Amino acid sequence: MGEIKLIGLDADDTLWESEIYFAQVEEKFLELMDKYSSDGDLEKTLSSNEITNLRLFGYGVKSFTLSMIETAHIASKGTISSSDIELIISWGKELLQHPVTFLEGVEETVRSLSKEYNVFIITKGDLLHQRSKIEESGLDTIVAGFEIFHEKDPESYLDFLNGLDIKPENFVMAGNSLRSDVLPVAAIGGRAIHIPHDLTWDYEKVADQSASASSYSIVESISDLPQHLAQEIR
Amino acid sequence: MGEIKLIGLDADDTLWESEIYFAQVEEKFLELMDKYSSDGDLEKTLSSNEITNLRLFGYGVKSFTLSMIETAHIASKGTISSSDIELIISWGKELLQHPVTFLEGVEETVRSLSKEYNVFIITKGDLLHQRSKIEESGLDTIVAGFEIFHEKDPESYLDFLNGLDIKPENFVMAGNSLRSDVLPVAAIGGRAIHIPHDLTWDYEKVADQSASASSYSIVESISDLPQHLAQEIR
Ligand SMILES: [Mg+2]
Ligand SMILES: [Mg+2]
Repeated sequence: MGEIKLIGLDADDTLWESEIYFAQVEEKFLELMDKYSSDGDLEKTLSSNEITNLRLFGYGVKSFTLSMIETAHIASKGTISSSDIELIISWGKELLQHPVTFLEGVEETVRSLSKEYNVFIITKGDLLHQRSKIEESGLDTIVAGFEIFHEKDPESYLDFLNGLDIKPENFVMAGNSLRSDVLPVAAIGGRAIHIPHDLTWDYEKVADQSASASSYSIVESISDLPQHLAQEIR
Repeated sequence: MGEIKLIGLDADDTLWESEIYFAQVEEKFLELMDKYSSDGDLEKTLSSNEITNLRLFGYGVKSFTLSMIETAHIASKGTISSSDIELIISWGKELLQHPVTFLEGVEETVRSLSKEYNVFIITKGDLLHQRSKIEESGLDTIVAGFEIFHEKDPESYLDFLNGLDIKPENFVMAGNSLRSDVLPVAAIGGRAIHIPHDLTWDYEKVADQSASASSYSIVESISDLPQHLAQEIR
């Protein structure tokens, strides 16, 4: 194993809760739509609209909010009231303002890793919201830096590592998303560590076969990361 | 004058048209709202909602789209139809897809500046949309790099320059916005060049007195930039 010159930590659902807040809003959305829609699988319709809109709208709350409005319009056959649409927008605003809720062990672990290693928070999506959460968390004062990718694909990781003059074999990335944190890093020859979260957005999951073709490790909690890295090095 | 080690070029309304597309959508919006609203100054109401929402939504098309929907809801007293809201969202999608339209002289000037200097495109706002435009323009293959700030304030410029190990006195920034491209750069001791554009978003303008307290130069067109820089050095 190469020397570790940089550890990247994902943020949403790795350092703090995120998906749970989206799930809560989705539940309220489905409830609201009860009186408008006979779509038996509205959850799936919303999810499919979200994914269709990703290409144009990208990730994040504003994108999700616009997808809910579009889904509401279509599913209600154009009958949803303007005040219910305003309600959906207010949920979006709430999502953008929910306080940072750390997952267990995060603060101690990030502090301890940062003493020994060069640690960056690496996340993706909405520049303003991601940055606000990082600053609110206070972790930006502990880690060496943070970076917000437009997409966590192999190219973005490579560009980022090139900028810091670090080779992939000296890079470790840990996070909850196989699609974003694990597979692209394994693909470029970095060391990827999966920290599963009970709630992970469906889009971030990948089929077992593509994951199993790839080499990465799994730790149950971020608290296990320092020991895992220490053992790997030996 | 210090040696020029980096030239930053703003993108929207400096390299290519942007505000004109927002203005066209705003015109369609005001027309649509005619049948719903008696607000004599709906343009001002929309603009004020946009600015209120900046803190949470940030810059860009998605933010603008959500602000139009909110303004439509309020101005119509809750009577706007769901299909008209869908129409507003479709305008947002159009805005995200309009082709890059260079301002006059941009390609030649960027090419010529890049031969002599280290040139970066420095823009702000929506990560995905800004990046898409930069890539579509092809200018990313000519310049040394690009950076998308969450906000063009003195701190962001300083962080960026620190990362490249460049002192403000060796930095030149050129762009159409006094608020974003000129004043913050002048404030940190960089050299700011204003390239006015006929259409500039009101929010990017600043009162004359704050601008006049600051030291910067003005060129009429980006085509004049190489000669302006050459003369300054002499
Ligand atoms: Mg995550
Ligand atoms: Mg501009």
